[in-house]
Amino acid sequence: MNNLSARGPAIDRRSLLASGALAAVAVSATGATDAVAQGDPEILDVIIVGAGLAGLTAARDLDRAGNNSFAVLEARDRVGGRVLNHRLAGGHFSEAGGQWIGPGQTAIADLARELEVETFDSIYDGRMVFRWGSDRVAFESDGSIEIEAGLMKRLDALAAQVPHDRPWTAPNARELDRMSIAQWLARQNVGGLDLLTMKIASVLTVGSGIGNCSMLYYLSMLNFAGGFQRLEAQKGGAQQTRFVGGSQVLADKMADELGAKVQLGTAVKAIRNWDRDIVELETTKGRLRARRIIMALSPPLCRKIAFAPALPDARRALQDRWPAHAPMCKSAMAYKRPFWFDEGYNGQILSADGPLIWAYDNSPPQQEIGVINAFLRVGEVSPDHETAKRQLTRLFAESLDDDRFLVPTEFHLHDWGQEEWSVSCVSPMPPGLLTSPLMAALDEPCGRLCWSGTETGGIWNGYMDGAVRSGRKAALETLQALRAEA
Amino acid sequence: MNNLSARGPAIDRRSLLASGALAAVAVSATGATDAVAQGDPEILDVIIVGAGLAGLTAARDLDRAGNNSFAVLEARDRVGGRVLNHRLAGGHFSEAGGQWIGPGQTAIADLARELEVETFDSIYDGRMVFRWGSDRVAFESDGSIEIEAGLMKRLDALAAQVPHDRPWTAPNARELDRMSIAQWLARQNVGGLDLLTMKIASVLTVGSGIGNCSMLYYLSMLNFAGGFQRLEAQKGGAQQTRFVGGSQVLADKMADELGAKVQLGTAVKAIRNWDRDIVELETTKGRLRARRIIMALSPPLCRKIAFAPALPDARRALQDRWPAHAPMCKSAMAYKRPFWFDEGYNGQILSADGPLIWAYDNSPPQQEIGVINAFLRVGEVSPDHETAKRQLTRLFAESLDDDRFLVPTEFHLHDWGQEEWSVSCVSPMPPGLLTSPLMAALDEPCGRLCWSGTETGGIWNGYMDGAVRSGRKAALETLQALRAEA
Repeated sequence: MNNLSARGPAIDRRSLLASGALAAVAVSATGATDAVAQGDPEILDVIIVGAGLAGLTAARDLDRAGNNSFAVLEARDRVGGRVLNHRLAGGHFSEAGGQWIGPGQTAIADLARELEVETFDSIYDGRMVFRWGSDRVAFESDGSIEIEAGLMKRLDALAAQVPHDRPWTAPNARELDRMSIAQWLARQNVGGLDLLTMKIASVLTVGSGIGNCSMLYYLSMLNFAGGFQRLEAQKGGAQQTRFVGGSQVLADKMADELGAKVQLGTAVKAIRNWDRDIVELETTKGRLRARRIIMALSPPLCRKIAFAPALPDARRALQDRWPAHAPMCKSAMAYKRPFWFDEGYNGQILSADGPLIWAYDNSPPQQEIGVINAFLRVGEVSPDHETAKRQLTRLFAESLDDDRFLVPTEFHLHDWGQEEWSVSCVSPMPPGLLTSPLMAALDEPCGRLCWSGTETGGIWNGYMDGAVRSGRKAALETLQALRAEA
Repeated sequence: MNNLSARGPAIDRRSLLASGALAAVAVSATGATDAVAQGDPEILDVIIVGAGLAGLTAARDLDRAGNNSFAVLEARDRVGGRVLNHRLAGGHFSEAGGQWIGPGQTAIADLARELEVETFDSIYDGRMVFRWGSDRVAFESDGSIEIEAGLMKRLDALAAQVPHDRPWTAPNARELDRMSIAQWLARQNVGGLDLLTMKIASVLTVGSGIGNCSMLYYLSMLNFAGGFQRLEAQKGGAQQTRFVGGSQVLADKMADELGAKVQLGTAVKAIRNWDRDIVELETTKGRLRARRIIMALSPPLCRKIAFAPALPDARRALQDRWPAHAPMCKSAMAYKRPFWFDEGYNGQILSADGPLIWAYDNSPPQQEIGVINAFLRVGEVSPDHETAKRQLTRLFAESLDDDRFLVPTEFHLHDWGQEEWSVSCVSPMPPGLLTSPLMAALDEPCGRLCWSGTETGGIWNGYMDGAVRSGRKAALETLQALRAEA
């Protein structure tokens, strides 16, 4: 769990700058909090809460618009939110959070283009291993996901009828939302390898077992992706393409451009007067005031903030019911070389049980070192770093018959469920929530608060792409709101 | 030249709506023009001049921001600007203007994703014909452009040193800008087939012969594209991917969303008081007033508008020197089937002289009909429709030894140099302009005027992608400007 940040010296520099900037706008803790006239230099136009991809994109657009009166507050001592580069020796990285993009994820692709971050394709051709119980088989993979053709056709046909931005309008929306993925699969008499595959796909894609997630929600994801392979596969799917330098480089580059406007280590404790002209934020580094607030964080994370007056009932209920603490844990094992390619393996293991869900090659583009990343079952992997390392390296050595896996040069483990400032990773929407009237509160502004974050992205919600979309939209809406009230 | 518009009934509906909307905001021609108080319903927040991709994207973003106080004025009776679908029988289309996207054109790819416009790849594998004088050769093409490896390497290395958004800062910028592409090629002793290829590439990509375009400008294009193949090739290049329904569908969809806010057949004749709080526009349909103007049209097209007070000297000089009337003419020949594929041809002819520059397959994605598009040399092709048709169909029949080319089901010709409201297609920047101080006037706002259009895109200037970027930026800057002055 050490070495969470890949930013190193850059953080120190920014922290220094930030503390100066903060002092300039902070209101004395004992000072008056009355609304003051527009033009007061201590009142910012916009405060953005959260320096993940959504908040930073919103900030970048405010900056591009020419607005100079904003700050981004970030509770952590790093930017990126659920996007995080583990720093490896030799200047390499391995992503502990969101990392891939694929076809149709055009908003983040465009951001990367503008930031001049290059992409490269994941390596997925080769022999991979599928494990269940004490059995295992090795087979040749081309990066697509094998399920029975009829099942895939039924999923895709059903998904085509579920508009991702308003799934509650789909035919039989209520029925599909009452059902878990597991219940739908059972009705379709799906069993055997297909059921195992769907179980693994579900836990990786929606962040929960097939019994906990609404079928309607899964269909809405298939809809925005454009079908099963587009959502679940590497080849031609959402796990196809990686960023040179690791995905966090996008956040780092935006933060570097924004300089002192990004204030790290600044947690928002309370938001007062959000229904009035001037909103007051109480943070761990003092009080700040602004005309508009962009809330660039997930709904459950908003629970950590005390709102006065209280938020509307529907918004509070939505935040309470939104899935949080969905366990998602990733590991990275580094080796001197990606020697598994020499043996014809692609570095992948899929496992129906035990600590490992899915492991895959995550070596840098030039393969100067070898890296295997893995998604893990939180309850099955040891929370102890050394024990977990032994569990996973042995599992690899055994599955691929190669003792070289036993001695990684580095091993990292990251449990997102334990993160104070993320609460969770993706959002396994429980049955019933998507068709409840509470969903209207997801992006309905409350007074001066504009709700952002990947959950509000409209397309590719829950993905980096959705975060970028939500940030762009928040910037536009907030600029217009400032204009309208002026 | 007939059937310029693919919109048909949609235009009539919009025109009706537009005339109503126009009446609601138009100021009587004899009425007072004094600036009035903010809040006057007759004063719009924003008027966007030009309903090409730039103007429509800006309008779409204002709309998404929640701004309701804007109009898009378009001189033509259609939207799309330099993007135009020729309507073919059977509901098919063939593009007469900008039509492809490729790697790195992420802004337009993202717009297409949001508008749910699908893409498909051009067909380029197969035998093609190269003609010069009375000679011709057929060879197998894979969609890349063949030039000598050393030449390509030198071009790419030089381009890597020319920042596309500030080419005047490149090493030897002045020297490279004084030189035409032809002069640079001569210094490199490029001759033979390479010189022919560069001549054809130049006229297609920059819209002029190699003698008329600045080498620095060409290098800046190679820079934003990411290299020679990325700029010039079909496979992996800027001519790789097409839009289902034709590229104009992007403009049509945005216009449909904007409804009566797009006012067709409304040419702006004069812009007064652009240096004051309320700007007045005199149009062919009456006077309009707004606080901010987005000028979403090319620099030379701005010459058609009378500005009072006169624009700053540098801006006027830039508009005067900007390349206009660069001849670019496209034809479309339709057939019952793309029979050329049966014979192993990809439908392409490259010609170093004569009326044809480059012809290529432009059939619809399902190939229900066959279409050959061609870029033509304006001075060499007959301006008479029937004669031009005979010239081109004979050239094809002869080059591909197939008399079926002689009897197309349809033939269209479109000369962009003759367009009243485009003036030109792409911008072959003459030597010296890019390093002149005038370039600062390209996007430097003048009073309440924000300059937009693909020429200001920053990345992929001159392409559809640059237009989208420029529109997005104009919306952000204009919203902020409204906020700042309020």
